[in-house]
Amino acid sequence: MQKDFELLARDQYSKARHGRLKTAHGVIDTPTFMPVGTQGSVKGVSPRELRELNAQIILGNTYHLFVRPGLEVIKHLGGLHNFMSWNGPILTDSGGFQIFSLAKLRKITDEGVEFQNHIDGARAFISPEIAMEIQAALGSDIAMVLDECVPYPCEYDYAARSAELTTRWAKRCREWKLRNGETAKRGVTDSAVRRFADSVLFGIVQGGTFEDLRRASAQAMVELGFDGYAIGGVSVGEPEEEMMRAIESAEPFLPADRPRYAMGLGTPPQLLEMIARGMDMFDCVLPTRLARNGTAFTTTGTLNLKNAEFAMDKRPIEENCACSACREFTRGYIRHLIKAEEILGLRLITLHNLHSYLNLMSRARAEIERGTFDQFRKAFVAEYKTRDAIIAG
Amino acid sequence: MQKDFELLARDQYSKARHGRLKTAHGVIDTPTFMPVGTQGSVKGVSPRELRELNAQIILGNTYHLFVRPGLEVIKHLGGLHNFMSWNGPILTDSGGFQIFSLAKLRKITDEGVEFQNHIDGARAFISPEIAMEIQAALGSDIAMVLDECVPYPCEYDYAARSAELTTRWAKRCREWKLRNGETAKRGVTDSAVRRFADSVLFGIVQGGTFEDLRRASAQAMVELGFDGYAIGGVSVGEPEEEMMRAIESAEPFLPADRPRYAMGLGTPPQLLEMIARGMDMFDCVLPTRLARNGTAFTTTGTLNLKNAEFAMDKRPIEENCACSACREFTRGYIRHLIKAEEILGLRLITLHNLHSYLNLMSRARAEIERGTFDQFRKAFVAEYKTRDAIIAG
Repeated sequence: MQKDFELLARDQYSKARHGRLKTAHGVIDTPTFMPVGTQGSVKGVSPRELRELNAQIILGNTYHLFVRPGLEVIKHLGGLHNFMSWNGPILTDSGGFQIFSLAKLRKITDEGVEFQNHIDGARAFISPEIAMEIQAALGSDIAMVLDECVPYPCEYDYAARSAELTTRWAKRCREWKLRNGETAKRGVTDSAVRRFADSVLFGIVQGGTFEDLRRASAQAMVELGFDGYAIGGVSVGEPEEEMMRAIESAEPFLPADRPRYAMGLGTPPQLLEMIARGMDMFDCVLPTRLARNGTAFTTTGTLNLKNAEFAMDKRPIEENCACSACREFTRGYIRHLIKAEEILGLRLITLHNLHSYLNLMSRARAEIERGTFDQFRKAFVAEYKTRDAIIAG
Repeated sequence: MQKDFELLARDQYSKARHGRLKTAHGVIDTPTFMPVGTQGSVKGVSPRELRELNAQIILGNTYHLFVRPGLEVIKHLGGLHNFMSWNGPILTDSGGFQIFSLAKLRKITDEGVEFQNHIDGARAFISPEIAMEIQAALGSDIAMVLDECVPYPCEYDYAARSAELTTRWAKRCREWKLRNGETAKRGVTDSAVRRFADSVLFGIVQGGTFEDLRRASAQAMVELGFDGYAIGGVSVGEPEEEMMRAIESAEPFLPADRPRYAMGLGTPPQLLEMIARGMDMFDCVLPTRLARNGTAFTTTGTLNLKNAEFAMDKRPIEENCACSACREFTRGYIRHLIKAEEILGLRLITLHNLHSYLNLMSRARAEIERGTFDQFRKAFVAEYKTRDAIIAG
């Protein structure tokens, strides 16, 4: 089941790695940041802008797309890549996280999870097999197993039972994919499943904030054997040291030759800390979500462009930034746009923020190659000031 | 005071004209459509996209910019062109229309108009001279005189007195510009006013729906002498035949060698009818405003892309359309974006609608040159179906 992941460089002072992951829709250089395209669109930006930002992969949310516009529409319009006119790689989550955070009246059994969606309250049922079918229909390049993501805080016993359920579900996802990959090779299933045979499947480590559960979950996933490993259930409200500990508890048990994906985080310093702890892939809504509120990310911290101090500011969001917003527009103008609720304002900050995250990954890769990543990380983290309260998620 | 307007072709079956207007920031081919950049941004699109759409001129709303961010900010950031990073021509209105439609507690005297703005209720006073100072500070290429725009319906006596007030105000605007243009030539005023000496000033014909008042207003404006003439107080709720009559009543009294601007309208068929009646310039919020509600303009009428019938539609908004939305995206995808309230949805429809309006003008110019405009207009109007209720403004 192993696919094309290649390690190109490793940092000698930390666990940072620089690698390359090949998918059906193109190559991804790791560490990588995946802009989040929740509903078939990375909020505020076009596919052309994503290409100009050099985004190599984006994320699609299975739950959202399943609820609206629904699978029939996306299948009819040629799968998620064609639907949204993005021909690069797409990673899809399994829908689990959103079922547990957005949907109502959930009923979890070993079989799967029944829920009412948050849009029109319609009932639906998703099992591990159905989660795979949906991701196959979407045409995902990197699919995720169905998992249960426990909240923070969470009792030990519940976290333990939940991690075991996630393992059983992961096994069924893996089997579905093997079975349907084989069928596809014999040429009897539809084109979405056939393409899906070329995709890769990641297991997800759960276990809350408990070291032994994280270790056991990692070991169980590795025993099943996946193309890559995600660490889920982080950045769900726990203190940052708990988040780091969850990663540190699981990482030593993950094979070095497979990509590791730390799900749903974080701030720029957190990303560098995660890279130092051996993580390769990230997704986070912060750059797009905070942009809509007027907050810009810079290499020295966040700026709330709504603040009056920026009204007359002739500088770009960030000096020497190569993004299209910084090349052409002043803070004063962007502040005006945000205050006046003009769409262009959030578009420009979104472009800058995505550039900032993607550029940080590119910088991290270069520093790892050069053997200077650890110095870079320490200097960056020391310089960085979070000037406004930020909640990741 | 006459500037560089050149007539290149005239239609022999109607009053349609094709001309060219030179401004400090570039040339405008007429008939022309001016996208509306109310608050220093054409809603939903970037200056780069406007350039790619081949927009030759945009409109800025003096009232909105005066209220927010205010003149000090725009002056500090280098005038409206630099502020919004648009280096093509800009026409600014005088602020009159918005004072009468948006602001509260207005008190009109011969001196000017006192009002409370609609954002924070702050009091302000605008006289003809102040309206000119503001437009000078903005760095307008085409400035408009301060006028009073009467509502529909309106009593004859009020419309008559109001048109006379507009004439007196127009005279003061003209005098301010002559005086300050002269001062600027002697090099004693600030750079905004100096640049403003190169701008052109349009008079505005008022008179409500009364033929004799429209004629008298046109004659009074022409007697004062302006670089161009606008017809205001149309598209304020009157029936379409009244709108046409207002234009027809004024047009014969306007000099053929000056550009004519029909303010604040309209639908694509209305624009062609206005061109046939000798109008050269248009601005309208419909293409941007309706886009935000999911309505697209095509050459055969409007489409409400929210409708369920488009959910599975693989076609672009309009077949054979060269706009960037139609080259890349399906109706089905755009419908999904609008239903899911994704910003990209309104961006794509806005791009298409602006392309549609700008392309209609380009087509009209070609048909006038070829001597086939009148046939084109009749065929277009006959084909066009307004499928949804539209209110211009």
